[in-house]
Amino acid sequence: MFDRDDHPHRRFNPLTDQWLLVSPHRAKRPWQGQREATAEVANLDYDPECYLCPGNNRISGEKNPSYTEPFVFTNDFAALTADTPPAQQNDPLFALQSVTGTSRVICFSADHSQTLPKLSIAQLTAVFVRLGKEVAELGEHYPWVQVFENKGAAMGCSNPHPHGQIWAVSELPNEAVTESRTQLNYLKNNQENMLLDYANKEIANAERVVVSNDDWLVVVPWWAAWPFETLILPRFAVAHLDKLTAEQQGSLASIMKSLMTRYDNLFNTSFPYSMGWHGAPFDGSEHPEWQLHGHVYPPLLRSADVKKFMVGYEMLAESQRDLTAEQAAHLLRAQPEVHYQNQ
Amino acid sequence: MFDRDDHPHRRFNPLTDQWLLVSPHRAKRPWQGQREATAEVANLDYDPECYLCPGNNRISGEKNPSYTEPFVFTNDFAALTADTPPAQQNDPLFALQSVTGTSRVICFSADHSQTLPKLSIAQLTAVFVRLGKEVAELGEHYPWVQVFENKGAAMGCSNPHPHGQIWAVSELPNEAVTESRTQLNYLKNNQENMLLDYANKEIANAERVVVSNDDWLVVVPWWAAWPFETLILPRFAVAHLDKLTAEQQGSLASIMKSLMTRYDNLFNTSFPYSMGWHGAPFDGSEHPEWQLHGHVYPPLLRSADVKKFMVGYEMLAESQRDLTAEQAAHLLRAQPEVHYQNQ
Ligand SMILES: O=P(O)(O)O[C@H]1O[C@H](CO)[C@@H](O)[C@H](O)[C@H]1O
Ligand SMILES: O=P(O)(O)O[C@H]1O[C@H](CO)[C@@H](O)[C@H](O)[C@H]1O
Repeated sequence: MFDRDDHPHRRFNPLTDQWLLVSPHRAKRPWQGQREATAEVANLDYDPECYLCPGNNRISGEKNPSYTEPFVFTNDFAALTADTPPAQQNDPLFALQSVTGTSRVICFSADHSQTLPKLSIAQLTAVFVRLGKEVAELGEHYPWVQVFENKGAAMGCSNPHPHGQIWAVSELPNEAVTESRTQLNYLKNNQENMLLDYANKEIANAERVVVSNDDWLVVVPWWAAWPFETLILPRFAVAHLDKLTAEQQGSLASIMKSLMTRYDNLFNTSFPYSMGWHGAPFDGSEHPEWQLHGHVYPPLLRSADVKKFMVGYEMLAESQRDLTAEQAAHLLRAQPEVHYQNQ
Repeated sequence: MFDRDDHPHRRFNPLTDQWLLVSPHRAKRPWQGQREATAEVANLDYDPECYLCPGNNRISGEKNPSYTEPFVFTNDFAALTADTPPAQQNDPLFALQSVTGTSRVICFSADHSQTLPKLSIAQLTAVFVRLGKEVAELGEHYPWVQVFENKGAAMGCSNPHPHGQIWAVSELPNEAVTESRTQLNYLKNNQENMLLDYANKEIANAERVVVSNDDWLVVVPWWAAWPFETLILPRFAVAHLDKLTAEQQGSLASIMKSLMTRYDNLFNTSFPYSMGWHGAPFDGSEHPEWQLHGHVYPPLLRSADVKKFMVGYEMLAESQRDLTAEQAAHLLRAQPEVHYQNQ
């Protein structure tokens, strides 16, 4: 008899229209490979060498203000520029298009030693208020605004000062095109918003729920690829971060603190991840098919220093995971709500 | 005026039907983040602790034979099993299918201290002969046979003994489905095999060619995502590794040695990568649209210890690179054909 917790199987991700391979029995495999440096959390609330701390100079020579609220500036090495000259090449094997855009950095806190789970709910709310404003402003000029955070050295983050990024771009990126298509198809086929429908079903089922409140739900999605991947879903229809009410910003801050605390508690470490928000494109159309959601992609697999490598088969064939989504949700749900450093 | 070597732009990958963001000006960015452990190359040709060395015991308790040719066995922690019970769940939000398959390991050499660029052409040819046999045999039972190698700790490889993997699976994985569709569309629209057409155009253009011989071509493809990603292309029509003549196996061994030597010489290190082969599915049909090809995905960006992180924007929006394909091809082409340790 087939047993989901023991036998290899594939699950389908309806947002990306991709399958992934689940090999639960593989979690027993011993690990002799690379161990990650565990995340260095800064002890000092101010570092004179940090280019993100208030009052310090950046590489561009500009000086940061003595900020106390979340602080936003344009990346000194922006991957996107607002004044790129136009270009287009349509050859099917050598297609090219120039893009315009901008890359901004947001410092979540002036305090160099902070991380999201340690910020107060009021401070986290201020982050979402500021992100909402950025999304609204950039959405007037660009169809796609990508808010994200790389946290920890294992995820390419080069500075422990708590910060995220906001990239805006003149063309819809791949993920945006795919999620637009899949959500639109779902609405057409089922007369329901896909992620609202999904949130309701996950709440009813309960086994993949990590934490929830009246406005928000966090699940390890049925189709999670990273070991402790989660999906942050609103329980009401909303297009993007700029459309949240003050109350919804507050309840989001609260659920984020709870989620991030559980992550840190899982392996008693400052949990590395990439996370970011997807919302409806800013193209002048209504998008009833679209629902705001946050993806959290953390690399750790079984301890603070053993991560999952998405290599080989994953790069050449499809994603593969070594424990089920239900097992991961159970482990996260079981964590205390109080941060391990305060216990 | 738009300048491809300086301005942000997107290029299109016709194999995966995806765009990627190129930000050439970003290569100037200083790096303060994680440094990789440089690849440990074993000095001893035999390690009594290695579970891949001839005559040693594996975790399963089985003892490796005293092999001298490439040696293949079933992975002790296989991600796929031949006897998975059947299961199918068709709910659009909770779809599942059980899979059968197998995961094999191939030791390229009995010598623990070897790497592909250091093997002789005769030894490399023996590897391709054996891979061809494995692909033929597994192709009788499974529609997809994925040959790949993870090399180096940075790519999740836990044992420096030179080895690769062969996974066979009962359902076409995502990449197989996508490349089948894109190659078929190209054949329909252009009456030509896509990758043969592409190889001819790259040879004529020359600027992305790394190395070539009468049978094979290595290019940094127009759409490369990883900094020094390459594509290995036959210059003749061929479906998979099991269909090569003895002469073509030999010329492939020769071009692989040349490519791998250039990689090692680029940063004077044993170059980490994931690489693997894609070929026509074994489903009983002719596949004139399909062409065998090898993808090489190496993570290093600008030195033996600074890699490119595919995180944040890459995971949430689309791949992004910091130097152009032409710049990368130029750097690889300029490397000597003799390995730096023998110079
Ligand atoms: O098979 P190994 O070497 O145990 O494992 C390695 O390759 C696999 C296939 O690419 C990956 O799923 C693992 O994350 C990686 O560590
Ligand atoms: O913008 P940063 O922090 O310099 O760079 C980091 O995030 C970027 C966006 O996800 C990635 O492209 C880089 O590889 C990563 O190191």
